[in-house]
Amino acid sequence: MPDSAQFSSPSLDPEEFRRLAHRVVDWIADYRRDLAKRPVTNDAHPGELLAQLPADPPRHPEGFEAVLRDLDERLLPALPHWQHPSFFAYFPSNGDLAAVLGDFLSTGIGALGLTWQSAPALTELEDRAVDWLRRMCGLSDDWQGVIQDTASTSTLIALVAARERTTAHGAITAGMQHGEAPLVVYTSAEAHSSVLKAAMIAGFGRDHVRQVRVDAHRAMDAEALRAETAADLAAGRRPCAVVATAGTTTTTAFDPLTAIADAVAEHDIWLHVDTAMAGSALLLPEMRTLFTGIERADSLVMNPHKWLGVSFDCSVLYVRDDQHLVRVMRTDPSYLRTDFDDRVKTYRDWGIALGRRFRALKLWSLIRTHGTERLQARLRRDLANARWLRQQIESTPPWRVLVPSPLQTLCVRHEPPDLTGDELDRHTLAWLDRVHATGRAWLTPAQLDGRWMVRVSIGALTTEREHVAALWQLLRAAVR
Amino acid sequence: MPDSAQFSSPSLDPEEFRRLAHRVVDWIADYRRDLAKRPVTNDAHPGELLAQLPADPPRHPEGFEAVLRDLDERLLPALPHWQHPSFFAYFPSNGDLAAVLGDFLSTGIGALGLTWQSAPALTELEDRAVDWLRRMCGLSDDWQGVIQDTASTSTLIALVAARERTTAHGAITAGMQHGEAPLVVYTSAEAHSSVLKAAMIAGFGRDHVRQVRVDAHRAMDAEALRAETAADLAAGRRPCAVVATAGTTTTTAFDPLTAIADAVAEHDIWLHVDTAMAGSALLLPEMRTLFTGIERADSLVMNPHKWLGVSFDCSVLYVRDDQHLVRVMRTDPSYLRTDFDDRVKTYRDWGIALGRRFRALKLWSLIRTHGTERLQARLRRDLANARWLRQQIESTPPWRVLVPSPLQTLCVRHEPPDLTGDELDRHTLAWLDRVHATGRAWLTPAQLDGRWMVRVSIGALTTEREHVAALWQLLRAAVR
Repeated sequence: MPDSAQFSSPSLDPEEFRRLAHRVVDWIADYRRDLAKRPVTNDAHPGELLAQLPADPPRHPEGFEAVLRDLDERLLPALPHWQHPSFFAYFPSNGDLAAVLGDFLSTGIGALGLTWQSAPALTELEDRAVDWLRRMCGLSDDWQGVIQDTASTSTLIALVAARERTTAHGAITAGMQHGEAPLVVYTSAEAHSSVLKAAMIAGFGRDHVRQVRVDAHRAMDAEALRAETAADLAAGRRPCAVVATAGTTTTTAFDPLTAIADAVAEHDIWLHVDTAMAGSALLLPEMRTLFTGIERADSLVMNPHKWLGVSFDCSVLYVRDDQHLVRVMRTDPSYLRTDFDDRVKTYRDWGIALGRRFRALKLWSLIRTHGTERLQARLRRDLANARWLRQQIESTPPWRVLVPSPLQTLCVRHEPPDLTGDELDRHTLAWLDRVHATGRAWLTPAQLDGRWMVRVSIGALTTEREHVAALWQLLRAAVR
Repeated sequence: MPDSAQFSSPSLDPEEFRRLAHRVVDWIADYRRDLAKRPVTNDAHPGELLAQLPADPPRHPEGFEAVLRDLDERLLPALPHWQHPSFFAYFPSNGDLAAVLGDFLSTGIGALGLTWQSAPALTELEDRAVDWLRRMCGLSDDWQGVIQDTASTSTLIALVAARERTTAHGAITAGMQHGEAPLVVYTSAEAHSSVLKAAMIAGFGRDHVRQVRVDAHRAMDAEALRAETAADLAAGRRPCAVVATAGTTTTTAFDPLTAIADAVAEHDIWLHVDTAMAGSALLLPEMRTLFTGIERADSLVMNPHKWLGVSFDCSVLYVRDDQHLVRVMRTDPSYLRTDFDDRVKTYRDWGIALGRRFRALKLWSLIRTHGTERLQARLRRDLANARWLRQQIESTPPWRVLVPSPLQTLCVRHEPPDLTGDELDRHTLAWLDRVHATGRAWLTPAQLDGRWMVRVSIGALTTEREHVAALWQLLRAAVR
């Protein structure tokens, strides 16, 4: 039964909140502490949860206790666990508990950024926090950052900025309906799906996106890029932007940024670099050669909400010249005008959304709590774990690591000599099913050259060598 | 000094989190309880906070205690208080503490929605929560909802969908660079700035956005709309979408949705309705006549993160036919394919971002904790407070309420008979400055017909009649 005391005010009272929030904190601390005891995967079926949830909203108060009951009885059974030490799926989507605390403060305070004046600390802490991250990554001070929700949005914004630069800001007036030579975007066949999606949303159209050929290492072939831009120019089209990837989703391949910058140098083509997951590796000086050439880009995106540990969502877009954003994104209604507009950053003009959460607090909390060296040590732990697993696999045929794995993601297949083609595909998906059926690891199947393989993405916050060793045992058991 | 115990593991340990999170909870409960004792505004100066924050990130751990010190000593002095009972600025951006609890759970669990399978509960609870909201608003069951970050994004998505319908999905191939008759978007001169911005991002271009004339009540003139579409057709352009507003930002004017739907009925024009703030009034059956005609729209957006009380960000986009979204937004890389794709909702195809927070939890928490009737009672309290203030002002010349105020926002001016034009503007901004200097209320100046007035937006969670009465006293004192 709901506690009637909490309904004496028109909204949840601070003292009731205090009582309930202490319960929530204990729930979360217990959940995180005991995660390893749960299966990482689950066996929910489509519509199962939906059928348990009442079709009609309650007319009368049920109290937050009802939500806690929902959570234990209905929601958890339909949630695999992204913060689990045996999470090797997709990519690490880490929410370090220091970042979680920062986000609690943001939500509890409930300040909204519309203008600098609407919440000065929100703008200025964001300014400083993204600059801290820039310094940690060894990027030059030519870059200015802003927090977006995801890399999909960051890449969309980069393409909009590119569109404006190529057209000398004509696209904000005539739009993409300029009736002149069509603008073309270049990316690789291994780029993230969000690049094509961003190009479609920004009005380029699928016909004006080139998926440039990749080399044997799945990296963009800069000579092929040069040929594609030349062909488009010859056909009367205008090369507008290249989206290169530093660490592709499927195999963490790195496009050759210097060669790409060289290939487009003679034309005024915007270079955007998608480092979404892999960007965290910039914190490690010894890994920076992978990103050589990044300083020649016009924009880049990295996602601290992945490997680095800032609770989703926190994607940082860095640009060299914010005026390309501001000139198309700027809105200036009278109710948002302030005396300070010419002296402050107005982040609404750096992205799509007008309102901003105080997301900088979670990034700030992570960095301040741990400091650079501790974050570096964790990333190095994950790279060492990936190297260890790679060695085990490479010394145990017919297991294979399929492509170079410069970071913490391995592309793995078990290839008995008698299996090829569809048979091999069936074998791969079958052993993966057996792994998942144990509930003791979660991996992601993906296609490489049209054939299934399994991605092992190492780097959950709590994943130690013992968990990787247990995974390796599990994989071998699954093919026996 | 940081507590070294918290650094025994590579990330913040659950037991350290427990200890610190209880402190954070108490901090937030105290902050919310004591808010009324603080000035609602602040007098931060640009760059002041930034200068206090170290330029370099820490190398060594400083512990989360350092963040709590930042908060008290540096951040709070640079934060006005959006949850304050004397917050009358912009629009209510309420974070009911029940929603705050739901968001804590979301952040603490750290599940990520990419596919249904990646977090089944995240998709299915969102499905049910937005359907609850639909029922609470009296909308027909033709609508399907999805949570976005803001109305800016929701409107952008609606325009992309409109673009595809008008071109029979040609815009995903040729893009807006189709070389055919340009597509045109219609909205009113009083529409939110995000409409023009969305049209620019989606590639329509400013030249292809018509700001249709408004009538004396600041509502779109449907006859003028009819004339504009006819003129565009005659000139060889293609009317594509109308964005109508139910509750404009400046004056909460309501565009006549039925007349607008009639005006565009003979053409295949997408009707999107922006109800961002005002949409919460749909919870009140007695207010629904303001929205008459909304069922004829193709899409609509409302923001539970405003007046209703769901912590930012939670904007709900409702569409009649999700296929218009899915056909342009769908991405299907192999690593996101699952066995369930044809039987479940795949919300990544309903918007721009790929990854999703478990935002449904905060909407769910608000509704389940309070129930419909309690939420209705709070909204009615705010409307009654606005009516009361209106009566005070109207009976106290030369104070004036300038335009109809069907909801909780009043547009106010003090108009001494001897003041007009620039002099009146100076008077308005001067008394508003005097109000703000007291720190006892926060209001927003805006322009109406090129002259300044002051918006009083009532509806913070903790704003009771006494706070509105105190505001009225403050206003009168400021002109004496």
